[in-house]
Amino acid sequence: MSLSQSIPPPPPRAAPVRPTTWIEPERLREGLGIRITLVAETFQRTGSFKFRAAWNRTRGSDAEHLVAASSGNFGQALACACRLLGKRATIVMPRTSARVKVEAVRGHGATVELTDVRVEPREAVVARLLAAHPEAEAASAYDDPLVIAGNATLGVEIGERLREWPPERRDRAVVVVPVGGGGISAGIALGLEATGLADVPVLGAEPLLGNDAARSLRAGRRIGLERESSTIADGARVAKIGAWNWAVISERLDAIVEVPEESIAAGVRRLFVEANLKAEPTGALGVGAVLTEPKRFRDREVLCVVTGGNVDPSVYAALLEDGPPGEGV
Amino acid sequence: MSLSQSIPPPPPRAAPVRPTTWIEPERLREGLGIRITLVAETFQRTGSFKFRAAWNRTRGSDAEHLVAASSGNFGQALACACRLLGKRATIVMPRTSARVKVEAVRGHGATVELTDVRVEPREAVVARLLAAHPEAEAASAYDDPLVIAGNATLGVEIGERLREWPPERRDRAVVVVPVGGGGISAGIALGLEATGLADVPVLGAEPLLGNDAARSLRAGRRIGLERESSTIADGARVAKIGAWNWAVISERLDAIVEVPEESIAAGVRRLFVEANLKAEPTGALGVGAVLTEPKRFRDREVLCVVTGGNVDPSVYAALLEDGPPGEGV
Repeated sequence: MSLSQSIPPPPPRAAPVRPTTWIEPERLREGLGIRITLVAETFQRTGSFKFRAAWNRTRGSDAEHLVAASSGNFGQALACACRLLGKRATIVMPRTSARVKVEAVRGHGATVELTDVRVEPREAVVARLLAAHPEAEAASAYDDPLVIAGNATLGVEIGERLREWPPERRDRAVVVVPVGGGGISAGIALGLEATGLADVPVLGAEPLLGNDAARSLRAGRRIGLERESSTIADGARVAKIGAWNWAVISERLDAIVEVPEESIAAGVRRLFVEANLKAEPTGALGVGAVLTEPKRFRDREVLCVVTGGNVDPSVYAALLEDGPPGEGV
Repeated sequence: MSLSQSIPPPPPRAAPVRPTTWIEPERLREGLGIRITLVAETFQRTGSFKFRAAWNRTRGSDAEHLVAASSGNFGQALACACRLLGKRATIVMPRTSARVKVEAVRGHGATVELTDVRVEPREAVVARLLAAHPEAEAASAYDDPLVIAGNATLGVEIGERLREWPPERRDRAVVVVPVGGGGISAGIALGLEATGLADVPVLGAEPLLGNDAARSLRAGRRIGLERESSTIADGARVAKIGAWNWAVISERLDAIVEVPEESIAAGVRRLFVEANLKAEPTGALGVGAVLTEPKRFRDREVLCVVTGGNVDPSVYAALLEDGPPGEGV
């Protein structure tokens, strides 16, 4: 049995996980000249798809205390899932994290361990915490079968929607998904498979600045970058995709489009202007991929997964203002 | 028969009109300490509820050519409805309108008549156009029975959702709606009535700077302001609510909260930060009302209608950056 076959099936929809939001953006379609439909996880609990993973991971564990290293969406999602399930959460975050992000995690009742990553890497802090709390368990943000299975619930939702489409429309479908650690693209591929639609192509969208997955897919083996990239898509800075995810991605992803920084920024702006959707830079990678290689998407039905919406107001304002003159509503 | 009784019933849902988007914003609920649910029309066709009105108005007319004065959402919505129904649209806009707004209207194939409002008021241009095009008909953005009936489809959606709630939850419901010309608040009241829920309170949210409707409700008669207000909620600058709308509002609205400019801006920011929702200032009036008079909403189930999301990137960026320090995700 291959690694990908030992990932559990997607769980049935659980009440705390919200259905995704389907948006048909007429102006964006006209602007891009491409039939695009947005699958937005920005209104998911805690503002990103990560809650699907965190919920399934927390529910599937016997441990009463979970420990994770995350400065972003997974930390918030895990803290929320633990609160809802009456468990403890400890989230390890860099001391340099924005205060508001730390407070969002604390707002869910989690303990935050701040670390100076130059002195002690986050993984070392996690190991130290596990030694001090033998009852606790480490939770990975992306490389874990229960995380992938949780993410697969979004693939199931997409599959169920596609099954309602007439076959001639469904035959043109392609799903575009941001790739960071690889958890959501792997999950979506497995979710589509679970609804009998394993033949729908899944395309990754990865920052060119952190293109470990694209390089891995080209090489046919998992390649890591020397360090985390500095892309504005902060959810996709992971230097090496997870082993579990690689098992799925290497079999199921058709290609990974490498998106330059300016196309990620343009994606954020176009979602704002032409779809009224607030997306974080990582969430705009799919639109960025369409802008980068439009020919790939002509005559297709593009299902573009917008993974999350959590972004600092000042970062977002700067992205809006950096647009070319004359761009706007 | 009173004026309000001669408004036609809400039409059945038509395919081009999209269902509204329901958002349960956990963080905003916790931040406000109030059970709020967002009823977002920001993903409606053309980005605001106005398409409901424009569609019903265009479909309900024998004329093949409609003329309207609008620099904002109604112009775009009418242009789109006319295009979909194979009719001509001419939209009268001030010469000072943002170029991008003019282009959005032209993008739907409408003719744009630019006017210098200091030389010739928009109404005069409409009259001149009607004289030159005897086959054409003028369409009001808000004061028209077919417009109100079109808006009422949103009230029907809200009523249908409320009917699914357990009675003890429904009994606490209050619907908060922005008031400009009064068309959407009147429509929602009538839509609730059509679903047998005429007893659900409807509260208006109007800019303090343009409080003609609030003053009218207090006085028991329709009062106009001397001039259009300069509120940032540009969809609510109307100096006097419509006669048809007044007939409904005077009977059905419980109160109108007068929202100061800083609370409108805070509403935009909080929807961004705590709900991942991009709203135009007019669309944030409901949250602004909750911030202005929170006691009114304690222990209630607040259904907050976010009427639209169309706002210039530069205006929006400035609103985000003007926030108090430390506010943010």
